[in-house]
Amino acid sequence: MSERIYNFSPGPAMLPYEVLEQAATDILNFDDSGIGICEISHRSKEFMNVATTAEKLLRELLEIPDNYKVLFLQGGASSQFFMIPMNLLGPGKKATYLNTGTWSKKSIKEAQLFGEIDVAFSSEENKFNRVPNSSEYNTAEDSEYLYFVSNNTIYGTQFQDMPASEKMLVSDMSSDILSRPIDVSKFGIIFAGAQKNMGPSGVTTVIIREDLLDKSPENIPTMLKYKTHAEKDSMFNTPPTFPIYIVGKVLQWLKDKGGIKAMEELNRKKAEQIYEVIDAGEYYRGHALKDSRSMMNIAFNLPTAELEAKFIAEAVGLGLNGLKGHRSIGGCRASIYNAFPQEGITKLVAFMQEFEKNNPA
Amino acid sequence: MSERIYNFSPGPAMLPYEVLEQAATDILNFDDSGIGICEISHRSKEFMNVATTAEKLLRELLEIPDNYKVLFLQGGASSQFFMIPMNLLGPGKKATYLNTGTWSKKSIKEAQLFGEIDVAFSSEENKFNRVPNSSEYNTAEDSEYLYFVSNNTIYGTQFQDMPASEKMLVSDMSSDILSRPIDVSKFGIIFAGAQKNMGPSGVTTVIIREDLLDKSPENIPTMLKYKTHAEKDSMFNTPPTFPIYIVGKVLQWLKDKGGIKAMEELNRKKAEQIYEVIDAGEYYRGHALKDSRSMMNIAFNLPTAELEAKFIAEAVGLGLNGLKGHRSIGGCRASIYNAFPQEGITKLVAFMQEFEKNNPA
Repeated sequence: MSERIYNFSPGPAMLPYEVLEQAATDILNFDDSGIGICEISHRSKEFMNVATTAEKLLRELLEIPDNYKVLFLQGGASSQFFMIPMNLLGPGKKATYLNTGTWSKKSIKEAQLFGEIDVAFSSEENKFNRVPNSSEYNTAEDSEYLYFVSNNTIYGTQFQDMPASEKMLVSDMSSDILSRPIDVSKFGIIFAGAQKNMGPSGVTTVIIREDLLDKSPENIPTMLKYKTHAEKDSMFNTPPTFPIYIVGKVLQWLKDKGGIKAMEELNRKKAEQIYEVIDAGEYYRGHALKDSRSMMNIAFNLPTAELEAKFIAEAVGLGLNGLKGHRSIGGCRASIYNAFPQEGITKLVAFMQEFEKNNPA
Repeated sequence: MSERIYNFSPGPAMLPYEVLEQAATDILNFDDSGIGICEISHRSKEFMNVATTAEKLLRELLEIPDNYKVLFLQGGASSQFFMIPMNLLGPGKKATYLNTGTWSKKSIKEAQLFGEIDVAFSSEENKFNRVPNSSEYNTAEDSEYLYFVSNNTIYGTQFQDMPASEKMLVSDMSSDILSRPIDVSKFGIIFAGAQKNMGPSGVTTVIIREDLLDKSPENIPTMLKYKTHAEKDSMFNTPPTFPIYIVGKVLQWLKDKGGIKAMEELNRKKAEQIYEVIDAGEYYRGHALKDSRSMMNIAFNLPTAELEAKFIAEAVGLGLNGLKGHRSIGGCRASIYNAFPQEGITKLVAFMQEFEKNNPA
């Protein structure tokens, strides 16, 4: 077996190796039942227990209040871009959006199909290099909600504090859920594709305040109403059983590691080591302004595009993969979610210092 | 390790053991790349190759003509219930549906949100114990398509021949795709959740004729237009990578076993052994009328509900699981998809004969 490499790609991303080892066993013979985890009915008591446990762990880790439902849906975060306004808006209704990157822009486009969208802030003209302070925008009085993306994977920016708004918050937390404590009670909906901080691709977690379940228009398809899934504990139709199984195992791993506060501390330490190299000189330049820096995705440039290409290629030779930045901004990016190991950070930091020495600008 | 059991449940269902063994390796270290299959970017060349290979195999096995697109989507077959009429119908447009069970009924309900639905046949008053001959219904002249469910999982009925209609066919083949040859060119759309004959839950295959991609109304969400996914080879957003990986492996297994014609022969032989026991006397009664019998799901009753409960419980003791019928009709059901092994059939048949002897009516 070849040595395990470090994958810095933005998602699907690295998972805890212990979880994968367990999965390798369970895929052949789940819990010594004589049949694999992918082969059992979603309505069997064995799988119901898997799903219930995953939900319970998520509730515990994020301290989700009782008046919220936890759903495991399909369709990716991209399906939430339209499901949220389809369920919460309608003719004459308004919502406020903060435009901090590609994923907020896409959300805004879908939301405009269902209501009046007030874009209260945009950092687009500065290549989305920052997120706003709460003092920089107003949430319209008649808005149903304030929508924002808590961490912008492509640009490496992250809200350091959640928006201070009287309005109900709605947030795409795909790339930083479970990386730090949050106060769920400020939110109407939190959603996240699993493939960054929670598991493999194919399942999206939606945390929704119960009173919102009754806001949906009557004439939308059954599968697109949150209530449909809430009433059946995400078992209205066959759920993506294997992805949910892995999410449960990752949540247990997270709990065993000390929970979200412990994870936040680790994440901060991991990110700081890379930012230190960036800040040590002029060679590496961070894309995000300092007060908007993400702990999850670090986007940076080298002096030239040629050096960036060389950097990315040499890194692969050392088992440091996926460092190429998103095609929309180029450069380099290191995505280091909860499960990304410290050893990979140590290796990257050493490589960055070495590369700078060997390849002067 | 406990002995491998036989799971007769209707889906998620048994997968080829060879495929699971390969997956157990690849989940830790995919293709000796040093990283697991769930942990690599969907845009990496490694995963692009996985998806392309799965599509190629499906095209080859089903002999899909070049003017069709193959999509791997999320949301289950249930999402196709509304996506089809949302994309193909609209005010003033009509479609014809055959009501042969729970899943057609649900499709009809969703379709009614988007157009006029003509239900040309229903076996509901006979507990859906049969599917129609083509002579039993008319497809309205102005219908956009004729919709039917090729195999009805709950009731154990199956169209022996595809409907003979001038109209474009649209079919939910979730529970019998790849179990027998079909002429794809008669269809506008074929769709199937993977968790019965193709892989684990979490991915739905859609085969769509290219000219239909331009029929969608402008103002529907981006994620709900077939064209969005067709133009990006199912990579518009992050696809369910692990389920797609397994589908590819199952398709390769199917090809190695001789393809769909060989599989049809095996399926017929497997089903006949169980039907023979049912037909041998009065003890077991098949739910489906003989000319509507399914090769995939065999729904049957014993003389009393008490005997059925005893039968199901004793079977579990022998490693024969999941024989309980759907809650809507009760009784027993054996789901025996492509990957269900002959040894499980042999064991079930022996048990049925033994049980009858030991438990006279």
